[in-house]
Amino acid sequence: MGRARTITILTDFGLSDVYVGVMKGVIALVNPRLKVIDLTHEIPPQDIATGSFALAQACEFFPHDTVHLAVVDPGVGSSRKGVAIRTKQGIFVGPDNGLFSGVLKQSPALLAMELNCPQYWRTFDPAPTFHGRDIFASVAAHLANGLSIAKVGTPMDVSHLVSLKLPGFSQIADGYAGVIQAADRFGNLITNIPGLIVEGLDWGVHSGGTTIRRVTSYADQKAGTPISLVGGHGFIEIAVVGGSARQSLGLKVGDQIRIFRSPRAS
Amino acid sequence: MGRARTITILTDFGLSDVYVGVMKGVIALVNPRLKVIDLTHEIPPQDIATGSFALAQACEFFPHDTVHLAVVDPGVGSSRKGVAIRTKQGIFVGPDNGLFSGVLKQSPALLAMELNCPQYWRTFDPAPTFHGRDIFASVAAHLANGLSIAKVGTPMDVSHLVSLKLPGFSQIADGYAGVIQAADRFGNLITNIPGLIVEGLDWGVHSGGTTIRRVTSYADQKAGTPISLVGGHGFIEIAVVGGSARQSLGLKVGDQIRIFRSPRAS
Amino acid sequence: MGRARTITILTDFGLSDVYVGVMKGVIALVNPRLKVIDLTHEIPPQDIATGSFALAQACEFFPHDTVHLAVVDPGVGSSRKGVAIRTKQGIFVGPDNGLFSGVLKQSPALLAMELNCPQYWRTFDPAPTFHGRDIFASVAAHLANGLSIAKVGTPMDVSHLVSLKLPGFSQIADGYAGVIQAADRFGNLITNIPGLIVEGLDWGVHSGGTTIRRVTSYADQKAGTPISLVGGHGFIEIAVVGGSARQSLGLKVGDQIRIFRSPRAS
Repeated sequence: MGRARTITILTDFGLSDVYVGVMKGVIALVNPRLKVIDLTHEIPPQDIATGSFALAQACEFFPHDTVHLAVVDPGVGSSRKGVAIRTKQGIFVGPDNGLFSGVLKQSPALLAMELNCPQYWRTFDPAPTFHGRDIFASVAAHLANGLSIAKVGTPMDVSHLVSLKLPGFSQIADGYAGVIQAADRFGNLITNIPGLIVEGLDWGVHSGGTTIRRVTSYADQKAGTPISLVGGHGFIEIAVVGGSARQSLGLKVGDQIRIFRSPRAS
Repeated sequence: MGRARTITILTDFGLSDVYVGVMKGVIALVNPRLKVIDLTHEIPPQDIATGSFALAQACEFFPHDTVHLAVVDPGVGSSRKGVAIRTKQGIFVGPDNGLFSGVLKQSPALLAMELNCPQYWRTFDPAPTFHGRDIFASVAAHLANGLSIAKVGTPMDVSHLVSLKLPGFSQIADGYAGVIQAADRFGNLITNIPGLIVEGLDWGVHSGGTTIRRVTSYADQKAGTPISLVGGHGFIEIAVVGGSARQSLGLKVGDQIRIFRSPRAS
Repeated sequence: MGRARTITILTDFGLSDVYVGVMKGVIALVNPRLKVIDLTHEIPPQDIATGSFALAQACEFFPHDTVHLAVVDPGVGSSRKGVAIRTKQGIFVGPDNGLFSGVLKQSPALLAMELNCPQYWRTFDPAPTFHGRDIFASVAAHLANGLSIAKVGTPMDVSHLVSLKLPGFSQIADGYAGVIQAADRFGNLITNIPGLIVEGLDWGVHSGGTTIRRVTSYADQKAGTPISLVGGHGFIEIAVVGGSARQSLGLKVGDQIRIFRSPRAS
């Protein structure tokens, strides 16, 4: 307790409506001094997999007592559960629909509570279309304010938490096979192959008929060169120096890639 | 006084320019500890009606000592007044051009002050194009800091505050006639008919030749089904499960709708 | 020391990825109570000149002990230096690639440090693609927290800081010649001619065959009228009342303009 914890928010609400602002109002109703940090609100509408990836990518860079509030919730108002989950990386609050899959793959659930104690909600009669405001924001604020996670509901068997079937990677004859799992604003393509796997090896990427050389930073090559490297999120990434790999190479999320050892010189 | 109040900001400034950041700088000049929450900055340029709706929708979810700073101000530099208004829902600071119409319809003005005390402005010589920075942000900061609203200017007759002619709804033979007053990021269409009016009744929506069944949450039907329900803002809303009602149904802001009792089964 | 300083952040990261959120996480790791204000994250990717203009425009409206963290960094991972610079307008942290040119034109560097003390970084092994997270955010947080700028690295000769060749303006027979240096969300076109130069004079703008009258605020003329005035940033600006000068007049960033004295009546 003692010091207040930070709350982060990740949603698919966008910034043109007041939905995100309203969630922050509900947090301020619990304690106006709570500090809130936006992760992103531009998750494509109802895209749980992208939300899961973004949240997992971000949470390791926050204090481990942070409360991460995440709402990508196409099933709001249905029988899907609301949950609070504790892991070594923080406390996570939101719908039990797979949104926390990426987080839980990194760091398993130590405790999961089904949210069914309305005294910590904004209202005893939550809108069936906006649990983000009426349940999740309020519960997250109470948790950040020092409330024990054991108080917000009923313990769940953590093995019952909904889990997305995330695309895996596999070892193959000369390396690893995986997929592009995300693209960022710069057009960098993020694979699902962790950089740790190729540490100390020579390697390259093969995708869509193209071989892409491995470098150690964007700045090692001249503009327009396709490169691969271990990105800041820890995964192998495909980039184009000073440009967009997504546009230049015609690759997209879901495309298959192969990592091979000892790349040919380009 | 004692504890600092939260400030919210709503504008049509967008987030690609530094105008919003600069207003927060001016607030920090008054007191760097003041907490600021963004409602939205994506009100369409100079669209006072949309700003009025968004502000009214948001303010009820904030502590009632919050200072709401709102700037959608096509008449900046003209003879339109700057005002601070107190209602039971908070204090509102911005141009007197109808932007507070929605708020005042919910909760009448208890006190309105014309802002003419430049000692609470950023400068005695405000830029004629940016009162948001030079007058409103600074006054809002002083109010959040504990200054009495009576100090910021001269009392006005609240009946003289500029009021938008907002579209109303009316009772008709078999229900109510109204309009679509807003659309959100998900393509949900928000009518101007309060859900309270149909509480306890069976009802549906008729619009553009289509009859839309009433449900209680987005999750009650299969994907692609048009539904109507009372949304989180309290108004009757038209949605498409897992999709966009705006795109699927070809309806838009301003279109007329009718609420009827005892809907036919679809 | 004593009181914590505000940090601002300006980047070209956009808001759809979690990169900005992650930088705020790193700041919270240093001190969760530090206050962070976003200037903008919509600088066009890798556009150092636009970043330089935006930062210079914003920083004068902040307390002068503010730490301004700016990351538009196409050369990340190359030999370009990371710097912390003190001026009378604040402390600036980011890459030494010209991003601080606009700021330094307004207020010269009093002290510049090359960032080479990894004890103030997030990690001794920063990702070669994300110094914003692993070096700059962490150093900015320590500085805002009260660390002396002298501790973060080795002093540099301030004349060695990288400087963009910004377009200048010149005196001509009947006035001044300059360029359009920026356009904002409203389509207002911001020239590089400071308003102070024409103070007390009659003047107008000539550009692309059009003569544009000078007024004192947007509200002085009827909708659709092209006008010129001194904008809130202090530069001469071209606007269209109730519309977009960029769209209506077909002018864009980089176009040449002339300011002349004693405009003809339109």
